[in-house]
Amino acid sequence: MKITSVKGTNDYLPAEVRLRDYLQRIILDTYQSCGFERIMTPAIEDMENLDKSDGGENLNLLFKILKRGDKLTKALEGGKFDALSDIGLRYDLTLPLSRYYAAHRNDLLTPFKCIQIDKVYRAERPQKGRLREFVQCDIDMIGSSSCYCEVELIDTTAKALLRLGMKDFKVKVNDRRLLKNILTGIGFLEEQLDTLCISLDKLDKIGTEGICEELGKKGMERDKVEKLLAILSDRPFTMEKVRPLCSQPEVIESLETIFTEVERIAKGTYSMELDITLVRGQGYYTGTIFEVESPHFKGAIAGGGRYDNLIGKFLNESVPAVGFSIGFERIFTILSEGGFEIPGRQKRVGVLYDLSDFQKAFTFAEKLRADGIHVALFEKPKKAGKLIHRLEEQGYDGFCNIGEEEPEVKYW
Amino acid sequence: MKITSVKGTNDYLPAEVRLRDYLQRIILDTYQSCGFERIMTPAIEDMENLDKSDGGENLNLLFKILKRGDKLTKALEGGKFDALSDIGLRYDLTLPLSRYYAAHRNDLLTPFKCIQIDKVYRAERPQKGRLREFVQCDIDMIGSSSCYCEVELIDTTAKALLRLGMKDFKVKVNDRRLLKNILTGIGFLEEQLDTLCISLDKLDKIGTEGICEELGKKGMERDKVEKLLAILSDRPFTMEKVRPLCSQPEVIESLETIFTEVERIAKGTYSMELDITLVRGQGYYTGTIFEVESPHFKGAIAGGGRYDNLIGKFLNESVPAVGFSIGFERIFTILSEGGFEIPGRQKRVGVLYDLSDFQKAFTFAEKLRADGIHVALFEKPKKAGKLIHRLEEQGYDGFCNIGEEEPEVKYW
Repeated sequence: MKITSVKGTNDYLPAEVRLRDYLQRIILDTYQSCGFERIMTPAIEDMENLDKSDGGENLNLLFKILKRGDKLTKALEGGKFDALSDIGLRYDLTLPLSRYYAAHRNDLLTPFKCIQIDKVYRAERPQKGRLREFVQCDIDMIGSSSCYCEVELIDTTAKALLRLGMKDFKVKVNDRRLLKNILTGIGFLEEQLDTLCISLDKLDKIGTEGICEELGKKGMERDKVEKLLAILSDRPFTMEKVRPLCSQPEVIESLETIFTEVERIAKGTYSMELDITLVRGQGYYTGTIFEVESPHFKGAIAGGGRYDNLIGKFLNESVPAVGFSIGFERIFTILSEGGFEIPGRQKRVGVLYDLSDFQKAFTFAEKLRADGIHVALFEKPKKAGKLIHRLEEQGYDGFCNIGEEEPEVKYW
Repeated sequence: MKITSVKGTNDYLPAEVRLRDYLQRIILDTYQSCGFERIMTPAIEDMENLDKSDGGENLNLLFKILKRGDKLTKALEGGKFDALSDIGLRYDLTLPLSRYYAAHRNDLLTPFKCIQIDKVYRAERPQKGRLREFVQCDIDMIGSSSCYCEVELIDTTAKALLRLGMKDFKVKVNDRRLLKNILTGIGFLEEQLDTLCISLDKLDKIGTEGICEELGKKGMERDKVEKLLAILSDRPFTMEKVRPLCSQPEVIESLETIFTEVERIAKGTYSMELDITLVRGQGYYTGTIFEVESPHFKGAIAGGGRYDNLIGKFLNESVPAVGFSIGFERIFTILSEGGFEIPGRQKRVGVLYDLSDFQKAFTFAEKLRADGIHVALFEKPKKAGKLIHRLEEQGYDGFCNIGEEEPEVKYW
């Protein structure tokens, strides 16, 4: 039998789990303090829902669950191999949330401010930092199109990141409508926008020249591409520069409110930046999009955006929604590799006993436990010194060897 | 698109999640206090491992994940339909733990005392109380065959149940070796034992007469069946009655130690009972088996046992192990239906604001949050009274209407 975990998934050692639990607790506590409420949905979703969810390239990464029994036999006989599966593992928490809201909205507040901290699955090509099973930590606000939702989401996410010790980070903000408006203003056609966005999403990787070449190959006219690149190269982006490029005043107003209100709240603990080149992959975003970057680490540590059309797919009416997700696995890797110590953690002590002393050892352990100390009992092995050494290696704080004298913990 | 969750799975509303999180926290805290350490493994396991795991009838309930791309095409062309899948969802936490221990034992203490609180998946026929995705809360001790492991597992599990408010429960204990020894003592053959155990497992449901009939149909000799039923009907079972029936003194000794030591520790807060009819389904149990029953609820609220051969399947040597699992979903249902109130929970308050007052509302919310109150901001709707009423319905403790006066929370 195979002893390694399935490709692209991780086993976690006790010290890693202590850190993961701590991080999730801080994130959850922060989210709850800001009035968000946790919900839970199953890891399994209907294939039909997953397929129609505008999940962009994530739809190519679905884990599908095989039908069983008669249903499987029928599907195989029918020869329709896309009928082999009718349920699959979720690739994010936004699609399940949309379904959930559609099903339960009469039992929920409006707007509904909710938390999801749970596992998602993507059949990514395994590589460092890309997992097939990973945790997402999302907050969402459903049922309001006010840009004050964005303000609250940025504030709450930033608070969690600050409590986790993330520093000097920057919240990059854009609006899908702004980007599209600039593009059509230059003269690109509506039907070119999606493919343009896909190219622009690679700006960080391939640079303006790479984009220029790629768009040329896609048959875009040279003068328009140059006009676009002139705009995209004119960093830093400011509202002043962008205002004349956008024919939708409500988009400008929304961005301005977000910047003004968040900067007032943030009081310099983190910074905000307009980035009109920010695209983000998901197909379902419709308005504001955001991402958090830290100069200390490559790539984003959080991201999200507005998706006003997704929930409407489950209902006969449109329901506005916006969400922000912390990149839990990135934060875990950063802190784990940085040798992060959990503040205020419980003390851990090993108590060694001979069989005849079990009750004495137990009574002593109970006394320590009553003081909030985590106590593990161990039957004394032949080489007690080796076990004590192992306890120290494993991060225990001390031990007690039960014998004739009054038991007492020796801390190292 | 479908708005209900996949058949046999649940969405959880905010109040339900608060209870689930609370229960898991109490269970985790109790386990950790007793020196167990949490680990995590993926929900996805290799099909080969799952298939060979002695999981009994659970193996018929596996969710298999469809291969993708070229591998799927090949499997379909080859016409070998059992090759359509090479990974699946775990049906319990014991098989993954065994694989985990085999992979990581050099990084772990011996004996390894570990916690798993996580989701498992079984394609059960959906019915009340049977979920296809559910949470298990397990503790295990690996690497020791001492029956003091059983003592610690029973103590720790009972502590968690007591902290969750479970009362008057009874820990039923048996030993697979005892049961088999009694059966061979009567004259049944080694190869009849498994099928006998399967019948005995139904004793609660079909009674002694049903068993008698069923065993007759299976071709068991009448006089042996009657001898067996005479023993099984002689309740209450005691060590005194059982001792002469068992030719293995080490089995009797192990049971006696468990009873003596646990009863000393329990000090009457719960009771212990020998039940030689206890079987439990899993094929992998080899020694002690236990189950917790409460007179207030039908069925077991916790169960487990010794599985000394499972880890050996991953290694070239045998490694003893024993585990105990709390029936999380049962406890959740019991407390949820009983209207359980979470002790010492944080206060929750809604703050209503007009857009022009956002910063004032935010500042007030921050003041409350600093005192540990969970505060949700709401843009004042046209019908503020209706929102306030909804807040009360949703279990909020009070609200504040931001206006001209000094803001103040009104608790109901």
